[in-house]
Amino acid sequence: MVSKVTVNSARRATRTLWLLMLVSLSVSICVCRASASAQEEDSAMENIVTEKKAEESHRQDSADLLIFIMLLTLTILTIWLFKHRRFRFLHETGLAMIYGLLVGVVLRYGIHVPRDMGNMTLSCHVNSSPATLLVNVHGKFYEYTLKGEIGANEVNDVQDNEMLRKVTFDPEVFFNILLPPIIFHAGYSLKRRHFFRNMGSILAFAFLGTVISCFVIGLLMYGCVMLMKQVGQLAGDFFFTDCLFFGAIVSATDPVTVLAIFNELQVDADLYALLFGESVLNDAVAVVLSSSIVAYQPQGDNSHTFEGMAMLKSFGIFLGVFSGSFALGVATGVVTALVTKFTKLRDFQLLETALFFLMSWSTFLLAEACGFTGVVAVLFCGITQAHYTFNNLSPESQDRTKQLFELLNFLAENFIFSYMGLTLFTFQSHVFNPMFIVGAFLAVFLGRAANIYPLSFLLNLGRRYKIRSNFQHMMMFAGLRGAMTFALSIRDTATYARQMMFSTTLLVVFFTVWICGGGTTQMLSCQRIRVGVDSDQDNSISIAEGSERRSTKQESAWLFRIWYNFDHNYLKPILTHSGPPLTATLPPCCGPLARFLTSPQAYENECQLKDDDSDLILTDGDINLSYGDITVSTDATGAHTSGGLAFAGTTTSDDLDRELMHGDHELVMRGTRLVLPMDDSEPPFTDPHQRLRM
Amino acid sequence: MVSKVTVNSARRATRTLWLLMLVSLSVSICVCRASASAQEEDSAMENIVTEKKAEESHRQDSADLLIFIMLLTLTILTIWLFKHRRFRFLHETGLAMIYGLLVGVVLRYGIHVPRDMGNMTLSCHVNSSPATLLVNVHGKFYEYTLKGEIGANEVNDVQDNEMLRKVTFDPEVFFNILLPPIIFHAGYSLKRRHFFRNMGSILAFAFLGTVISCFVIGLLMYGCVMLMKQVGQLAGDFFFTDCLFFGAIVSATDPVTVLAIFNELQVDADLYALLFGESVLNDAVAVVLSSSIVAYQPQGDNSHTFEGMAMLKSFGIFLGVFSGSFALGVATGVVTALVTKFTKLRDFQLLETALFFLMSWSTFLLAEACGFTGVVAVLFCGITQAHYTFNNLSPESQDRTKQLFELLNFLAENFIFSYMGLTLFTFQSHVFNPMFIVGAFLAVFLGRAANIYPLSFLLNLGRRYKIRSNFQHMMMFAGLRGAMTFALSIRDTATYARQMMFSTTLLVVFFTVWICGGGTTQMLSCQRIRVGVDSDQDNSISIAEGSERRSTKQESAWLFRIWYNFDHNYLKPILTHSGPPLTATLPPCCGPLARFLTSPQAYENECQLKDDDSDLILTDGDINLSYGDITVSTDATGAHTSGGLAFAGTTTSDDLDRELMHGDHELVMRGTRLVLPMDDSEPPFTDPHQRLRM
Repeated sequence: MVSKVTVNSARRATRTLWLLMLVSLSVSICVCRASASAQEEDSAMENIVTEKKAEESHRQDSADLLIFIMLLTLTILTIWLFKHRRFRFLHETGLAMIYGLLVGVVLRYGIHVPRDMGNMTLSCHVNSSPATLLVNVHGKFYEYTLKGEIGANEVNDVQDNEMLRKVTFDPEVFFNILLPPIIFHAGYSLKRRHFFRNMGSILAFAFLGTVISCFVIGLLMYGCVMLMKQVGQLAGDFFFTDCLFFGAIVSATDPVTVLAIFNELQVDADLYALLFGESVLNDAVAVVLSSSIVAYQPQGDNSHTFEGMAMLKSFGIFLGVFSGSFALGVATGVVTALVTKFTKLRDFQLLETALFFLMSWSTFLLAEACGFTGVVAVLFCGITQAHYTFNNLSPESQDRTKQLFELLNFLAENFIFSYMGLTLFTFQSHVFNPMFIVGAFLAVFLGRAANIYPLSFLLNLGRRYKIRSNFQHMMMFAGLRGAMTFALSIRDTATYARQMMFSTTLLVVFFTVWICGGGTTQMLSCQRIRVGVDSDQDNSISIAEGSERRSTKQESAWLFRIWYNFDHNYLKPILTHSGPPLTATLPPCCGPLARFLTSPQAYENECQLKDDDSDLILTDGDINLSYGDITVSTDATGAHTSGGLAFAGTTTSDDLDRELMHGDHELVMRGTRLVLPMDDSEPPFTDPHQRLRM
Repeated sequence: MVSKVTVNSARRATRTLWLLMLVSLSVSICVCRASASAQEEDSAMENIVTEKKAEESHRQDSADLLIFIMLLTLTILTIWLFKHRRFRFLHETGLAMIYGLLVGVVLRYGIHVPRDMGNMTLSCHVNSSPATLLVNVHGKFYEYTLKGEIGANEVNDVQDNEMLRKVTFDPEVFFNILLPPIIFHAGYSLKRRHFFRNMGSILAFAFLGTVISCFVIGLLMYGCVMLMKQVGQLAGDFFFTDCLFFGAIVSATDPVTVLAIFNELQVDADLYALLFGESVLNDAVAVVLSSSIVAYQPQGDNSHTFEGMAMLKSFGIFLGVFSGSFALGVATGVVTALVTKFTKLRDFQLLETALFFLMSWSTFLLAEACGFTGVVAVLFCGITQAHYTFNNLSPESQDRTKQLFELLNFLAENFIFSYMGLTLFTFQSHVFNPMFIVGAFLAVFLGRAANIYPLSFLLNLGRRYKIRSNFQHMMMFAGLRGAMTFALSIRDTATYARQMMFSTTLLVVFFTVWICGGGTTQMLSCQRIRVGVDSDQDNSISIAEGSERRSTKQESAWLFRIWYNFDHNYLKPILTHSGPPLTATLPPCCGPLARFLTSPQAYENECQLKDDDSDLILTDGDINLSYGDITVSTDATGAHTSGGLAFAGTTTSDDLDRELMHGDHELVMRGTRLVLPMDDSEPPFTDPHQRLRM
């Protein structure tokens, strides 16, 4: 009886807390408004106007930020409720957008602040636009810093909507503060085993696919814009480069919503790897692509004609920036690995974690300072850190760094999505053009189709284990647009074309996150994609498709094999404590260097045959490998119990036994040198250890 | 042989890495300079000047930030070496300052950037200083935002030293970004058992002591300033309020260096609690005090005369701001506790940690938005979170939050200290006045003495177990000035007086951190203060002082007892899952409310006699309590083994046995209601569980 009472009371308390949060949100909005309106009342009678103003402005900023914090808090509480009740149709990012929208509506229409005369704009006619401006007011000097150029037609807007402008962040905040942790986390939490196995396909989708998508969308949009010009729907300039730019920014997919559900339902790990890998890398491609398109500037008078040289230059920029960012990211990752390997920093976890964090952050700054793209550098830094440095860290630091970036990623992501919702109403210069919007949705759809289907067809020619049609449909469906698309589109909203793009992009993001994200479970069951697959066990299943074994593990095998050999024999021993000693793998002439670089642990490992294969699986959880102490039969039953949600329902114990006959025969270690058997008929060898913790 | 080779190679590798880091630091400085000088070369020929400029400015910012990241990285590596070799004379903060100094020297004297003509300042004469300024340049509009007022004599400086100004942060960064995590961490990691036991003394030192110190220093400095005026050494205005302001900012002690060593050497926990508690609270007092002094503005023409009303108003502001901030901090802590109690958020650690982080941050923003002091609110929020919310969190979140704020604290602290070093050379308007400096050092010394000795004397009249003279000397010696003093002094450097204060404050900080911080171990041994004391075991030791038992545990017993009763019987059950059920402690008339608020766990706890006494000790490590399964004898040997570094050397096993007879007889729980025995002769009861993990 007591427990019943308390359950009820807990429920009531939850409801109370809900109300409390809502109240606090509205209070914070009011505080925000109040401090805005208080600004001019006392400013007239005070002498030290500037100081007062700075203080008021600070209070205003705090209040504005508070709105977002409250939004995030509300999102967290609601998403907890959803998770608690197992609602899967709305991801936290989608929810954050909805709350953002609501607050945006309130800010836009709910509150009227009297026009702030204190901010009246003065135009003084000077000859240049210096970065710093000194203004002489009755002998007192005030310092002003340049914020940017604004269009002549917006001059009045600046005054009118000071209130809404206050809750508008500098777009660069997204690129310099919010995106880096998201992208780093993506790299750091990559399931590298499946990523490397599908490397060829992922690279194809990410590079070729993004470029295809960009150009298809660009061309379609150009057609749409031409049509709009004919009809007279276009009120400003819209060039082909603008269309291409639009293509580039909406080509960055962000299936975070889909992947969260994949993770929860344990969908096939190769499909997961394909989608995740593609989305991680195509963000990088899209960033560099869009900046290359912006850099396309023909020499002549008409700056929007086709010119070979400028095109080539753009292409050069693309290659240069991408490879430069890549190299920088990898380089700092390698330096961190070396530092953590050769110092005994692991005795002091705090120092270790701090170093890791600082080095990762410095990648971003270094890339930006050198004129490369920080976001791209951070991605490859994350992958390198996960692949090498992670192994040198103490277990505590491994946990700490994972958790730290997980938290940062979570906060940044939800912040961006709630800001997205907010900005639909608070952004000042939306240009919603129905024709352009319809065209854009069509183009985005076709662009994605032109990316997935032809590439899958081509890849399937080379892949031993095909990307099946239901996987293709799922990938098509999972082409959500998210944080990166938003950040790219809000970065520059100066021209009419860019404003139209931004508004349309917002709608594309809303639609894909809510509709495609929300329909993931339906789509999975509709496409009969197996769920409840243990990600370490699914190497060669899918008997549902009849005789075609769809395992992708041997796919792009040559690329994988070359890379794995090099990585295992040279990079791992140099950068971590694991792998065979360099003295064994390097040619004898490099003896002293090899001895210098090999850590004592490596010699110990030598005889133990203890491979760090584990780190290829590591982000999956905390799977520690040990060899040969678990029997195959345990394995089979294990796979059974985890398959509770399987849609296809065809996995019988016979099938599993058959699979296990083939086994997971890559990454087999014999002594020091790697032997990678190419033959399918190899007896099961390393498989047994895979389901140690389930 | 192999291991010897590798040890040597590791050593060589370490040296190589060192060089690498130094090289990378200098590279980053060069990049920083290069991008500064590249700024004007291509800006002339480009059309889109503004965009280019914004980009260059961004690159410059990245490079500048990179310098600090590299500095921190270098600090971390060096401090690891120091810890590795057990050097205790230099704390990481002191080291960070040294590195900052070196880089400051390089930036100031090492590199000459040609004068940047692109930033040439234009003075246009207008009638007011609006927050936003539009500048019309040949029909194009550029937007400028107000940065602040600058003195007429600095107008030329602004142009000259653009380079050094670049590495200068907005002082508000310290207050709004760097200080909050430091202060929150201080509150969150307070050793609450010892804090509450010494609450009376700590409050006296923090409030009364800081005010005494502020006024003593203010008066002495006013004398010094008068003298300087006589001698003709003063080049500008320096009012009594300025002197008081100086007194307030240098009264905030920050013995982080000393406490780190205390922690490492396990110095007496009460001394630790006194110092730590004082420094945490006097930061808060100093912030509010300084803002109250700034708010002192008499009505008349002469704004620097004494006026009763203005004085009263300042006092009112002090009380209002302090209690407002306190209330806000506690309120958000309580809300977080309630949310974590009544939702099952603990099933999703990421959401839980994120909520905790956001709520703690919102405290700061809320306080700032309401016009209170965010830093003070954050402190009390931290204490509340540690005391209540922490108990509702899942174990993973407990670790995560602790580690997160530990990391943030570490990074922020070292950043501030390295910036301090840097700013000694890069700050533009230093005013070093030898007389003022000597006066300030003397005043700081006397102010601290006037705080510690008289207050200790008065407190000793009331304390049953006295603050001995060697403790007093140690507290006197540990009056280091740190992050808060720096942040307060750099906040406003507009006037001549403030500049002189800032320069002097820097020197005070340098001196105290290096000399007092570095001499802590010497001072400890010189004052014969026992080290190697287990913090949970030291309730009644100090036999070295003869018959006077100096245990402070019964000190301010009435305050502690009232608070503990209230907290245990009402607050704990309401805000956490622990403590007795409210149905038992509240009067019967509140029955429904009591049932509503009591969690099911409380009923279970009722019969188990499982008190959450543990949370009063928790920040010590991860001490988990279990009752009666460890014998007293284990305890005694435990205390022995940990006393390896004892200076006094008088702790014999006989003494320990005698102590254990008295035992730790506070917080003894019997059933639900609290019984707090006042008698010293109580047999040992709860002691055995205390040294479970050593």
